[in-house]
Amino acid sequence: MSAELPQRSIDTIRTLAMDAVQRANSGHPGMPMGCAPMAYVLFREVMRHDPTTPDWPARDRFVLSAGHGSMLLYGALHLTGYDRPTMDDLKAFRQWGSVTPGHPESADLAGVETTTGPLGQGFANGIGMAVAAERLAAEFDGGGHDLVPQRVYGIVSDGDLMEGVASEAASLAGHLQLGRVTYLYDDNSITIDGGTAKAFSEDVLARFNAYGWHTQRVNDGNDLDAIRAAIAVADADPRPSLIAVRTVIGYGAPDKAGTSAAHGAPLGEDELAAGKAAYGWEHPPFHVPDEVREHLDMRERGRQLRAEWNERLDRYRDTQPELASEFDRRVIRGELPDGWTDALPTLDGKDATRKHSGAVINALAPVLPELLGGSADLAASNNTDVDGGGDFSADTTTGDEPAGRLGRNLRFGIREHAMASMANGMALHGGVLPYVASFLVFTDYCRPALRLASIMQQRVIYVMTHDSIGLGEDGPTHQPVEHLASLRAIPGMTVIRPADGDEVVDAWRTAIETPGPTVLALTRQGLPPLGDKPPRPAEAGGYVLADHVNAEGDVDVILIGTGSEVQLCVDAAEQLVSEGVGVRVVSMPSVDRFLARDAQTRADVLPPEVTARVAVEAGVSLGWDRLVGDRGEVVSLERFGASAPADRLFEEFGFTPDRVVEAARRSMG
Amino acid sequence: MSAELPQRSIDTIRTLAMDAVQRANSGHPGMPMGCAPMAYVLFREVMRHDPTTPDWPARDRFVLSAGHGSMLLYGALHLTGYDRPTMDDLKAFRQWGSVTPGHPESADLAGVETTTGPLGQGFANGIGMAVAAERLAAEFDGGGHDLVPQRVYGIVSDGDLMEGVASEAASLAGHLQLGRVTYLYDDNSITIDGGTAKAFSEDVLARFNAYGWHTQRVNDGNDLDAIRAAIAVADADPRPSLIAVRTVIGYGAPDKAGTSAAHGAPLGEDELAAGKAAYGWEHPPFHVPDEVREHLDMRERGRQLRAEWNERLDRYRDTQPELASEFDRRVIRGELPDGWTDALPTLDGKDATRKHSGAVINALAPVLPELLGGSADLAASNNTDVDGGGDFSADTTTGDEPAGRLGRNLRFGIREHAMASMANGMALHGGVLPYVASFLVFTDYCRPALRLASIMQQRVIYVMTHDSIGLGEDGPTHQPVEHLASLRAIPGMTVIRPADGDEVVDAWRTAIETPGPTVLALTRQGLPPLGDKPPRPAEAGGYVLADHVNAEGDVDVILIGTGSEVQLCVDAAEQLVSEGVGVRVVSMPSVDRFLARDAQTRADVLPPEVTARVAVEAGVSLGWDRLVGDRGEVVSLERFGASAPADRLFEEFGFTPDRVVEAARRSMG
Repeated sequence: MSAELPQRSIDTIRTLAMDAVQRANSGHPGMPMGCAPMAYVLFREVMRHDPTTPDWPARDRFVLSAGHGSMLLYGALHLTGYDRPTMDDLKAFRQWGSVTPGHPESADLAGVETTTGPLGQGFANGIGMAVAAERLAAEFDGGGHDLVPQRVYGIVSDGDLMEGVASEAASLAGHLQLGRVTYLYDDNSITIDGGTAKAFSEDVLARFNAYGWHTQRVNDGNDLDAIRAAIAVADADPRPSLIAVRTVIGYGAPDKAGTSAAHGAPLGEDELAAGKAAYGWEHPPFHVPDEVREHLDMRERGRQLRAEWNERLDRYRDTQPELASEFDRRVIRGELPDGWTDALPTLDGKDATRKHSGAVINALAPVLPELLGGSADLAASNNTDVDGGGDFSADTTTGDEPAGRLGRNLRFGIREHAMASMANGMALHGGVLPYVASFLVFTDYCRPALRLASIMQQRVIYVMTHDSIGLGEDGPTHQPVEHLASLRAIPGMTVIRPADGDEVVDAWRTAIETPGPTVLALTRQGLPPLGDKPPRPAEAGGYVLADHVNAEGDVDVILIGTGSEVQLCVDAAEQLVSEGVGVRVVSMPSVDRFLARDAQTRADVLPPEVTARVAVEAGVSLGWDRLVGDRGEVVSLERFGASAPADRLFEEFGFTPDRVVEAARRSMG
Repeated sequence: MSAELPQRSIDTIRTLAMDAVQRANSGHPGMPMGCAPMAYVLFREVMRHDPTTPDWPARDRFVLSAGHGSMLLYGALHLTGYDRPTMDDLKAFRQWGSVTPGHPESADLAGVETTTGPLGQGFANGIGMAVAAERLAAEFDGGGHDLVPQRVYGIVSDGDLMEGVASEAASLAGHLQLGRVTYLYDDNSITIDGGTAKAFSEDVLARFNAYGWHTQRVNDGNDLDAIRAAIAVADADPRPSLIAVRTVIGYGAPDKAGTSAAHGAPLGEDELAAGKAAYGWEHPPFHVPDEVREHLDMRERGRQLRAEWNERLDRYRDTQPELASEFDRRVIRGELPDGWTDALPTLDGKDATRKHSGAVINALAPVLPELLGGSADLAASNNTDVDGGGDFSADTTTGDEPAGRLGRNLRFGIREHAMASMANGMALHGGVLPYVASFLVFTDYCRPALRLASIMQQRVIYVMTHDSIGLGEDGPTHQPVEHLASLRAIPGMTVIRPADGDEVVDAWRTAIETPGPTVLALTRQGLPPLGDKPPRPAEAGGYVLADHVNAEGDVDVILIGTGSEVQLCVDAAEQLVSEGVGVRVVSMPSVDRFLARDAQTRADVLPPEVTARVAVEAGVSLGWDRLVGDRGEVVSLERFGASAPADRLFEEFGFTPDRVVEAARRSMG
């Protein structure tokens, strides 16, 4: 091999990025130009991956947390032999319908492990991936088996490290000693607004040391040997690792290198040409020298790595048939076990829906070992603990409960955002089914991660309790008011607010069967059972709970409630019925699921001819107009809550049967 | 003074908290029991405050970031002589209508500097307060004057330090060397879920050292001399300071002390009695010994401190009459200058609304020196820089532009959440008018702070640009879709999406005149001027931009647009009018302002008899039903965006005059 070949390969990664950004007339050339050597070492030498089988479960995961440098990843995937992106795909960078969007989208392109761009998210996703890998290794490896060798590599930027979500995840990764993580920090001293000295002068490595990470510095981002050596040391260390690599953004561009001008805009034809000249690059745009293509082709290496692993898997199937069967189901096929729904409990007592939820979790835990979740320091309030399941931890001391990586309960600490972002990483990794928990109001802290779960359509279940003013004395800062509406606004997010034990059981079932993310909004306060209802109430979204026709056999008014407010509708109906009014009560645990149903099904529940309607929900009315219509009324809360016992709050804010009755009378005109 | 008096005073703070929580049967007794000595030292010896004048501008600010320990603050305010809370107020802790809610609410009680409870927020608020104080000191102090001596003291918890928002704020505070900050860390090793060892094992002080903070440890939270000494050292250091104080949560309670059982629930009568016995406390509930009341009464001390400061202010008025007049206006009266609106520009050209916004900022900067803001590393994209205004920094090197604390542009780094939370602190401090900026999609990162700005009704202006798929190639992660709806869902938040230069100018004016927070949603792409319109279009919320009656003199259909989609309505109207249809075009820059107007005014714009209506907005339709009604149509985007040039996206997603015309035809039936 020519000594020049690595350099030519690196320059190929660089020039592809420069050319693609120039052609798109949009994008971020500087990062790939600075980080190409890291990508070269990672994709060619370090990472276990097979371009012919991008979804190989035992592959190392690569996270480009600095997602704006997407061309670095696209170039690496193309050059190492992935089917996509093709050269045409690279030329379609940032164009309509391409698999090479501005930021890497996991749904668009195999090899993109997670959708990145919003800074800090990839960093935390990778920590979640490491949690999943650790868990699977603990469950399936042992006795000389090594089915779960995968590590998590990432390239992170100044911006990632400034974001709070990364700080939270880093602190927890250090606590959990997630040694599978090796992050390379693109330490280029440049952000969009200029030098990092404008806003970022902390000692990053000292900070990560304080978190319990292993840290190193590579002084020259073009020094391949130094990068190799640092990664080797990092991988051998039991702690998560951060390697600060000094790079030059836009390396090679004579005027823009080392400046923010190289960050987020095309270099321009002249600067691009000058940069290529600096590399000694004399080719037309998008050129890949044949020897580079051969040098970077990782397909044969990938096949071999996978063949070795397949041999291990075969031995495993021989010696550990039961575990192997479980491994096949969870990790390779990614399926739920047959008959898992048989374990769903019947919950027909009066209780808080958060407690019903806890009962479901504990009923499912034995049959769904992939369920792995926890709370941001509110486990007892969120009822998320698997009883006797132990804590997932770095402490492998054996006691009465499962310990170390076999502990079932994740303790996220008071780090809601990292929790939700890590859950995305866990789901993306596969083999585990993550659920995370806090108070509903604190979905605000998680929101960027919730949005990404929706974009990526990852199955993450958010157990969000204390879902209204029913939270009581903690007051307005802790009482969600606008949250149901604002969560329903997120495309692809399922929101379920069950009203009793039956609805909770089906809400969990629906969440587990839904490919995308689901918020379960659950009460603090006890709720009575609502009695008979159709078999899949939460999946249906909304259904007729009770019909009381008037003397003519008609329904005069429809009362629609969710969660704790359904009982209010039931009580109001009783009063109206006693006055001879025909009343239908509709429970609507999931507005979005209901709206997704066909028109006829919706009309069966909400007949167009019945225009007198009242919706009741202890939150803002936003979004209910479409269900109650022009003549309808909404009993809602258009202000922040208050600190007082819950019963007093419901009364003071007008969530009483009387007020629902009044609204019904207004709507009937 | 009896040597016992400090101890009795501290025990009074403790027992008031224990009794109030017990009486409310709800709350957090453990934190006040552990932190009472710190409160004693701060409120009695360290902080400059005057209970008779809680809003004295030169007071030190106290931030209880661990807001769940609210009784510590209520007790301290009561005992040091504030008019409220009275003893009856303490007994009404956590009850309807009380000034002593579960978490401290700045709007409810003077002396509560900020609403806390959502963890990490108070920490970052305090950093913002220090920014404001530094700025005012740089503007008004000098030449021996000392009108702005105030410092920021806080008590922060494990939870605060785990939250990402605090990490971001700490990093920036270190960078900016905000030496006015002294935070005491209630290092009690306990969170709700149990020992911090479950999730939090980082070296906190090493982390803060890495941020550039001065750090100390006090090994015994009951050692008053050690607390005093540490605070004195901290206050003398030019860096922000964190003092880790080892405390025992629920100190004194024989069974619950040092456990999470003392965190968030009443002690119970027996444990409470045993705790009081441990203190040697033999009094009925809510007892304040006379000698303690006298010992803690800070009113005379406060009056003296304020008298000294008033003398300084008098001298200042003599020697610096112009500056003194400005100080009176901004800091003491908190008013805008007369005639400031004369500086508002006329912006009638075609441009992106973000650029119009930049023009407004630069036009107002000279007449509103209190305007102090910046961006989370997107200043050039958000157009937020005051040109030639220099950067607010720790670097006082004089150059061509204002430097050090006189720099007008805040560089928040890639720390959106801390930015928004610091802005709350700046607004609460007063004397400055904060504006902060990012892409609209990243309001998600700021959301907990936006909510608190709304709860507290603080005047913070969010300059949120790239407000739709018009962002283009960066793709779905960067394109807001659900954000206008979800921001409108927050009670008390004003959202304005202007459509041209006139609307931008009035949007800024409205935001500055609005007591609460305002989001300005601004385009990346250029928009044409819409021509003549009423004088205050943004304040009005919605208005008739054009009326084209049909042959009978009637309007057949109303087209409603916001921001960049108003022009679409104008174009569609032209097509419909050419077909003889009567069309009204309504521009609705602020849905919430429009909905807040009286019924007649709304009916003047949207006459009830015209039921054919189309709303056009490049985001989810949620919330538009209430404006278009049962027969209306919404041209919206019910999915995430995509990566492509903006024009292509508008076309692919159906934001074209043709589609608006089709919707109008459907609505007209």
